[in-house]
Amino acid sequence: MTNQSDAVLAHVDSHLEESLDRLLRFIRIPSISTDPAFAPQCREAAEWLGAELAAMGFDASVRPTAGHPMVVAHMAEGHAPHVLFYGHYDVQPVDPLALWTSPPFEPSLEQQPDGETHIRGRGASDDKGQLLTFIEACRAFKAVTGSVPVRVSMLFEGEEEAGSPSLGPFLQKTADELRADTVLVCDTDMWDRDTPAITTMFRGLVGEEIEITAADRDLHSGMFGSAARNANHVLAKVLASLHADDGSIAIAGFYDGVTELPPEIAQQWGRLPFDAIQFLGDIGLSIPAGEAGRSVQEMIWARPTCEVNGVWGGYSGTGFKTVIPGKAGAKISFRLVSGQDPQRIRELFRAHVEALIPGDCSVRFTDHGLSPATVMPLDSPLLRKALGAPEAEWGREAALAGTGGSIPILGEFKRRLGMDSLLIGFARFDNRIHSPNEKYDLSSFHHGIRSWVRILAAFADQN
Amino acid sequence: MTNQSDAVLAHVDSHLEESLDRLLRFIRIPSISTDPAFAPQCREAAEWLGAELAAMGFDASVRPTAGHPMVVAHMAEGHAPHVLFYGHYDVQPVDPLALWTSPPFEPSLEQQPDGETHIRGRGASDDKGQLLTFIEACRAFKAVTGSVPVRVSMLFEGEEEAGSPSLGPFLQKTADELRADTVLVCDTDMWDRDTPAITTMFRGLVGEEIEITAADRDLHSGMFGSAARNANHVLAKVLASLHADDGSIAIAGFYDGVTELPPEIAQQWGRLPFDAIQFLGDIGLSIPAGEAGRSVQEMIWARPTCEVNGVWGGYSGTGFKTVIPGKAGAKISFRLVSGQDPQRIRELFRAHVEALIPGDCSVRFTDHGLSPATVMPLDSPLLRKALGAPEAEWGREAALAGTGGSIPILGEFKRRLGMDSLLIGFARFDNRIHSPNEKYDLSSFHHGIRSWVRILAAFADQN
Repeated sequence: MTNQSDAVLAHVDSHLEESLDRLLRFIRIPSISTDPAFAPQCREAAEWLGAELAAMGFDASVRPTAGHPMVVAHMAEGHAPHVLFYGHYDVQPVDPLALWTSPPFEPSLEQQPDGETHIRGRGASDDKGQLLTFIEACRAFKAVTGSVPVRVSMLFEGEEEAGSPSLGPFLQKTADELRADTVLVCDTDMWDRDTPAITTMFRGLVGEEIEITAADRDLHSGMFGSAARNANHVLAKVLASLHADDGSIAIAGFYDGVTELPPEIAQQWGRLPFDAIQFLGDIGLSIPAGEAGRSVQEMIWARPTCEVNGVWGGYSGTGFKTVIPGKAGAKISFRLVSGQDPQRIRELFRAHVEALIPGDCSVRFTDHGLSPATVMPLDSPLLRKALGAPEAEWGREAALAGTGGSIPILGEFKRRLGMDSLLIGFARFDNRIHSPNEKYDLSSFHHGIRSWVRILAAFADQN
Repeated sequence: MTNQSDAVLAHVDSHLEESLDRLLRFIRIPSISTDPAFAPQCREAAEWLGAELAAMGFDASVRPTAGHPMVVAHMAEGHAPHVLFYGHYDVQPVDPLALWTSPPFEPSLEQQPDGETHIRGRGASDDKGQLLTFIEACRAFKAVTGSVPVRVSMLFEGEEEAGSPSLGPFLQKTADELRADTVLVCDTDMWDRDTPAITTMFRGLVGEEIEITAADRDLHSGMFGSAARNANHVLAKVLASLHADDGSIAIAGFYDGVTELPPEIAQQWGRLPFDAIQFLGDIGLSIPAGEAGRSVQEMIWARPTCEVNGVWGGYSGTGFKTVIPGKAGAKISFRLVSGQDPQRIRELFRAHVEALIPGDCSVRFTDHGLSPATVMPLDSPLLRKALGAPEAEWGREAALAGTGGSIPILGEFKRRLGMDSLLIGFARFDNRIHSPNEKYDLSSFHHGIRSWVRILAAFADQN
């Protein structure tokens, strides 16, 4: 590290309060992308980001799409390499709202017994807190040195939590403008609270919705019971058929092309401290539900999954209603691994469901997006340069982790711009992202900003 | 029929418009009993009924219960026999509201191509229109003759659509006041649009709600997918297990004590015009879903059933959310036949479910009421007297029908007051009760009132 970098790190420390104020302001914008009612708030979040970046001297703009807008910013003054930082300003829905201990869009700072401070609110971690770590690192460089040390572009979308439908077309259109030497992504976890991580494997995703129609109306169970097909019964048979008793997915052809974990990765994972009992115990469970004979690590990082994310049908309100529903539905998602073609998985799933629908019933499928799995190359020179920075900040070697999550954009960057992505995040396992009471640790935020200062300085180093 | 009865029938005809106005006013009160938000409207409906009966000269009162109030009315002036008319002023919920062609509590009169007029609105048939046929018959007697020809009491409850929790205790308390020679119930269908029916078999009912808990919170499917048990998956396995592939109910011991239909009834049903293909075709179906080898008539009138009335779990809103729900639930009802003990069926069901819950998950059961099946004696003298009245009004012999519906109160009247019930109703098969766009035919209303005039006159006949 140079003296200049030390000065930038000192600036980060002395201006942390202001950085945190910006994060709290950002969280207060309820930018829920999947619910059309919040479209104005998504736009507000995009405009807030654009204005912040413009004030820092970036050439920033908010660009319309068919969905929520993109925020694009450039600062061309830096040296090679040219990096493109990606993040998303949209957040997940907040239901069930009753389980939040404080309103999700009125962020609170909560002192913990161990000295940590939790920044509580929807998006505090995913992805508002995480993306601001990079912006605040750039801000500190600008304040201390007058510039950022490498050429930086940024891209923020507002549909990551809704399957990123506008991203592919937008990248296609702006490929020449956005192409850089690498993509930086900050939407991942630390290995544990003391160990940084660079994530190298991401699963793909297929989102499907089914709606089963039996009778052409809701029926009185006393008049039609058992003679008339109940849409809830058909739905239950379909959903129960997706998994075999051994936890494997029972769709014919689903595992075609799925390979075993490379020995190198399997060995590294074996060295990492991971306690499956603790992992499940933290969420109130004790029995792994996935494929029999696989480790929990494999289940969550390296194996494909099928989850029923939502079911509905008939009367679910207070009291009781003896109705036979004419319609019932479910949302189902698949996490895919390398070797699985998302489009083929979709087709196998639909064929599997169709085969279970009685002859006088029907099913309608709705496509909720897809993306293939991606695997980062371990020999990337920028990855090798970046590796030392988290270690210097956290005092521990960075884990080259896998993750079960899906960032569909990684495949898009590779396909449309030819770029590999570098995934470094500072979230913690217990951040409750997508759940009530999401939080981000103040130390994640602080050391995250400092880590990016170190990474940018390492990139600028010509040695 | 006497000349006096003819005069009463003529009065019914000439005052039909006013009777209809009263029905429309009654429908406008949204007395949804199962939703606590509508408690004031339930009270309003009770008070409206009480006021109408008092104005007719009944000794009428609205009596509080732990739930919605009872309406009790007496007119002691008539001769023997003493009849107790039972009905309910509460209605089913109206969701899905979007499927209604007109607002459910703003009744409309819709002229049909065949000359019929539909009275459209929630409760138009079940049970506001039906119960008013009796009240309007009494009103006509009072107007023409100054009295009703037999001693009449009435009891209206406001919890029939919510399992009638207050009725048993109330009957216990008021047994001496309400005991009569028979109970008259008007909550059933015509056999078809031209054939009246007296219903002789009613199934029992058990209502259950289950809530399955897996993880102690909702989880992100990318972080926990497949390793953490998904409550929706457990729910689907439980619900799919309730029926075997042949349509029978797969709960051990469920059919214990269930007997075959008596030959006498089976023969009568065989003579009735019933087209199973038409029955299912009218609701957009073609394949009977019940026990293989049983007729559709048996399925809907004489065999026990199990229906999943509602399911929920995870995210069912607009868009997509890759959540693993910690909780999922369902409402399930059983229709029972003679020989099945409701409490034992509840216990068998709960044991069946418990056996399917993984060791680290749990299930909570909520009791939504129960009642045994009841069978009317075919040799009741009042039944024999009543039989001629519908025939005179409709020009067809009354069918002694079975029905799949459940009126838990029948068992209560028998057990607590020692009374048998006589079930005569004028609803039609296509009234969409419990569904959007419920209606009652104006001719059902008109001929229903006239039928009660004839029945009351027949009861009064001392021969």
